[in-house]
Amino acid sequence: MNYRMIGYILCFMLRVEAALMVPSMLIGIGNGEIESVKAFAITIVLLLAASSWTLFNKPKNRAIYARDGFVLVGLAWIIMSLFGALPMCLSGAIPNYIDAVFETVSGFTTTGSTILTDVEVLDKSIQFWRSFTHWIGGMGVLVFIMAIIPMSGDRSMHIMRAEVPGPSVDKLVPKARDTAMILYLIYIAITVIQIILMRLGGMPWFDSFVITFGTVGTGGFGITNISIGAYESKYLQWVITIFMMLSGVNFSLYYMLLLRQFSRIWKSEELKWYWVIFAVASIVIAINILPMYGSFEEAIRLGAFQVASIMTTTGFATADFNLWPELSRTILVLLMFVGASAGSTGGGLKVSRIMIMVKSTFREMRRLTHPRSVSLIKLDKKPLDQEVINGVHIYFLAYMLIMALSMLLVSVDGFDFTTTVTSVIACFNNIGPGLEVVGPMGNFSEFSWFSKIVLSFDMLFGRLEIYPMIITMSVSTWKRKKKNNDKNENSLS
Amino acid sequence: MNYRMIGYILCFMLRVEAALMVPSMLIGIGNGEIESVKAFAITIVLLLAASSWTLFNKPKNRAIYARDGFVLVGLAWIIMSLFGALPMCLSGAIPNYIDAVFETVSGFTTTGSTILTDVEVLDKSIQFWRSFTHWIGGMGVLVFIMAIIPMSGDRSMHIMRAEVPGPSVDKLVPKARDTAMILYLIYIAITVIQIILMRLGGMPWFDSFVITFGTVGTGGFGITNISIGAYESKYLQWVITIFMMLSGVNFSLYYMLLLRQFSRIWKSEELKWYWVIFAVASIVIAINILPMYGSFEEAIRLGAFQVASIMTTTGFATADFNLWPELSRTILVLLMFVGASAGSTGGGLKVSRIMIMVKSTFREMRRLTHPRSVSLIKLDKKPLDQEVINGVHIYFLAYMLIMALSMLLVSVDGFDFTTTVTSVIACFNNIGPGLEVVGPMGNFSEFSWFSKIVLSFDMLFGRLEIYPMIITMSVSTWKRKKKNNDKNENSLS
Repeated sequence: MNYRMIGYILCFMLRVEAALMVPSMLIGIGNGEIESVKAFAITIVLLLAASSWTLFNKPKNRAIYARDGFVLVGLAWIIMSLFGALPMCLSGAIPNYIDAVFETVSGFTTTGSTILTDVEVLDKSIQFWRSFTHWIGGMGVLVFIMAIIPMSGDRSMHIMRAEVPGPSVDKLVPKARDTAMILYLIYIAITVIQIILMRLGGMPWFDSFVITFGTVGTGGFGITNISIGAYESKYLQWVITIFMMLSGVNFSLYYMLLLRQFSRIWKSEELKWYWVIFAVASIVIAINILPMYGSFEEAIRLGAFQVASIMTTTGFATADFNLWPELSRTILVLLMFVGASAGSTGGGLKVSRIMIMVKSTFREMRRLTHPRSVSLIKLDKKPLDQEVINGVHIYFLAYMLIMALSMLLVSVDGFDFTTTVTSVIACFNNIGPGLEVVGPMGNFSEFSWFSKIVLSFDMLFGRLEIYPMIITMSVSTWKRKKKNNDKNENSLS
Repeated sequence: MNYRMIGYILCFMLRVEAALMVPSMLIGIGNGEIESVKAFAITIVLLLAASSWTLFNKPKNRAIYARDGFVLVGLAWIIMSLFGALPMCLSGAIPNYIDAVFETVSGFTTTGSTILTDVEVLDKSIQFWRSFTHWIGGMGVLVFIMAIIPMSGDRSMHIMRAEVPGPSVDKLVPKARDTAMILYLIYIAITVIQIILMRLGGMPWFDSFVITFGTVGTGGFGITNISIGAYESKYLQWVITIFMMLSGVNFSLYYMLLLRQFSRIWKSEELKWYWVIFAVASIVIAINILPMYGSFEEAIRLGAFQVASIMTTTGFATADFNLWPELSRTILVLLMFVGASAGSTGGGLKVSRIMIMVKSTFREMRRLTHPRSVSLIKLDKKPLDQEVINGVHIYFLAYMLIMALSMLLVSVDGFDFTTTVTSVIACFNNIGPGLEVVGPMGNFSEFSWFSKIVLSFDMLFGRLEIYPMIITMSVSTWKRKKKNNDKNENSLS
C-alpha cells in the first residue's frame, strides 16, 4: 500500500472538512451563538493541526492502488466522522461523544437516524452543520477531493469505485478527475434549483437550505421534531417528493441529459424500474391508507412522499407510517432493502442490484427446465459480465450476513423484535427511521452505547457498500510485511 | 416431458398413500372412532379410484428427464396433500377444507404449524395420521417409491435430486434405487430406536410413536396443547433433543458409519459446524435465560431443546420462547434461517449452504484486497465446483425474494410486524412456531384463508427447495408444443 499517499489525501480531507465548517461557524457568529462558535473554532484548529503532517511528508509516488482506494475511503469516513462530531460535543448540543459520533455518522452517511429527542432547541449553526453533513456525504467527500486536487491519472478511479455506490461505476469522460467534477456540478445545480423552489414556496431561507441538504443528500435530518410534517404546504411536500426521487436517480443520467443523449436515458432499465416501483408502491399504499385520511389527494400525497422518502433512503416523514396498516408498513420495510439507483446519493441494495438478482433467479429457472439453453443476463440491452453478476450475488450475501450479525448484537438491548430488526435495517440501508421505538416520530436515544456503535458501523457499512469498511478493519490489510507489500503493489498497479 | 411416466408414478403414489392410511384407520377401529374410520375408508376408496388411471395407461418409455423429476415431485406433493387432508375434513376434525389442507401440508412438509386451538380433543386415529404425515414427508414419499418400484436406471436420480434437500445429493451406491432403500432403512432404524427409548422412559406406546414421528421427521406436531412441555421427565426431554439433532444430520453419514468409514465422517465440515452452532447457541441462550429459571441445569436443558428444535426445524417446545429475552428470541429467529444439514429430514437454508455463502464472502474479500490471488472454495477438503457455488447464491436470492413476496401477501391480514414476518419464516423454513401470535403456544387459526394458502405454498416451497414448485407452477412448463417437447426430451436425456 502507498501509505504516504493515503496519509496525504487524508490530511487534505481534514483541511477540506475545516473549510466546510466555516459556513456553519459564520451562521453561529451571525446569531450570536457563542458556545457553538467556540466549538467550531476549536475543531477547525484541531483539523488544521492534525493535517499539518503532510507539510513534512510529501509522497513521491502518487499512485493509488485498488486496495488503497478501499482503505483510503474507509479511513476517511471514520476520521471525518470522529472530527465532525466535535462541534456537537464541544458546544454541549450533544454532550456525550458517542452520541455525537452516532449523529455525525448518521449525517455523513445520509442516514438521518437521530439520538436527539428535541432538535428544535439546537443552535442554528449546529442545525446547519448537522444537515450540511448530509450534503457532503451524499456525493462523497473523496469524490469532491478528486475533483479539486490533481492525482496520477486513472488510478484515482479506485477511489471513486470505493465511494460511489452501485455494482459498477460509470466513467463519464476519459479522465477520472473530470468525471468527479461533472458529478459535483450536477449535484450543486440540483441543490440550487431546489433551494430556489423551496424559497418560492414560502419557506424561510434557512429552512430552504437545510431541508434541501437533507433532500438532495437523501439524508433526512430535519429541524423540527415532526420532520416535514411541519410544512403544511402541499406544494412544498410535492417538491420535496420530486427532489427526493430526482436525487435517487443515477447522476450519470443527468450528464446524458446535458449531452442530449436521450436514447441512452431511455435505455436505462434501472430508471424505469425505479419509477415503476415508486408508482406502484405509492398507489397501493394510498389505497391502503385511504380510510385513515379524508381524501384520495391526501392519501396519495402522503403515500408518495413516504415511499419516495424510504426508497431513496432519505427518511423524511410527513406522516407517522408506524401507525399505518401492516400492509403499508411491510411495503415500506421491503422498500428499505430496495433503495435507490446506483450512482445516486441514496442507499439500500440499489434497484439495479435487485434487477440483476431477479434476472439471475429467472435465468436459473430457465436453466433448470431447459438445461441446454444458454441465456445471458442483459441490462440496458447489453449482456452483463458474469463477474458483475457474481459480484452482486456475493454482495447480497455479505449484506445479509452483516445485517443478521448486527441484529444479534443490537438484540442484547432487549427492545422488541420489530424495533431491533428495523433499527438495523434503517441504519444499514441509510434510511433513518424504522418502526416502533425508532419509528418516524421516535428516535435512537434509548439504545445502549454498544448498540449505537454497532449501528454507527452499520451506517458506514451501508453507505460505503461493505467492502471499504471490511478491508479497512481487517487485520490482514495491516499485517502484511513491507516487502511483500511493495511487490504486490507493483503487480496490482 | 414424459407425461405418461409422471402419471404412472403419481398413481402409484396414490396407492401408497392409501396403504399408509391403513394404520391410522385400524387405530380408529380399535378405539371405536366411527366418524374417523368412515372418513379414512372414503379417502382410501377415492385414492384407489383415482389411481385406476394407470390400469389403462402403461408407459412404454420409463425414462425420467431432469424437468420431469421437478414436475413429478411438485405435483406429487400437492396431490398428496390435497388427498391427505380429506380424513381430517370428512371426519369433522377440521371441517374447513382449506384449514385441513394447511394442516396436512404442514404435516407432510414437516413444518408443524397448526391451525388447531385444541389438539387434545382429536380422535386418536386423526392424531396418529397427523403425526404420521411428518414421518412420510421427512424422508420423502417419492424416495420411498423409488425404493420399491423399478425405474429405468440412473434417470430416477432426477427425482431424488428434486426431493432430497441440500445443494447436492450424494449417491451412496451406484444404483439410485439402492441409495433410496439404504436411506429409508436408516430412517426406519432411527425411528425404531427412538420409539423404544421413549417407551423405556415411561411414555405410553401411542405417544411414543407419535412423538417419534414428529422428532425423526423434524415435524413438530404434538398431541398436547403445550407440546413436549407435557412430558416433565428430564430423560425424555434430553432423548428428544438428541434425536432431533440426529435427524438433522445428513443421512449419508449414517451409511458411512455402517461402512465404518470414520475418516469420511470426520472430514464432514457441515457436521462440525452443525454441532458447533448448536452448542454455542444453546450455551448463550442458557446464560441469557438463567435469571428466568432456577438452575443452570434447567436453563441449558430448555436452551438446548429449543435450539435443537428450531435448528432442525422440528418446532417442538418445552418452554414458551416467545417470552424469553430479545437476544434469545433473535438467536432463535436467525437459526430458523440456518436450518439443519443437507440430506437430512430438516429444513431451512441448510448448514452447508450457509458455509458456502460465508466462504464465498470471505473469498470475495480476499479477491478485492489481493486481486491476483486465485482461491478455491473447499468443502470437506475438496474444491467446490463454481457451478455449485453459483447455485447456492441463486438459491439464496430466490429464497429471499419468495419470502419477501410472501410477507407482503400475509401482511394484508394486518397482524403485527413480528407475527407477519415470523409466520412466513416459520412456514418457509418448515419450523412450525414463530413469535407473538404464532409463538410456540399460539397457532395459525386466526389467519385468513388467503394467508393460509400463501403459507401452505411457502411450506411446500421450503420443503422442496423452491425449484420443483416453481417449475410445476410455471406456465412455460405446460405450454410448450408437443413436437418441441419430444425433441427436447431427447436432447435432455
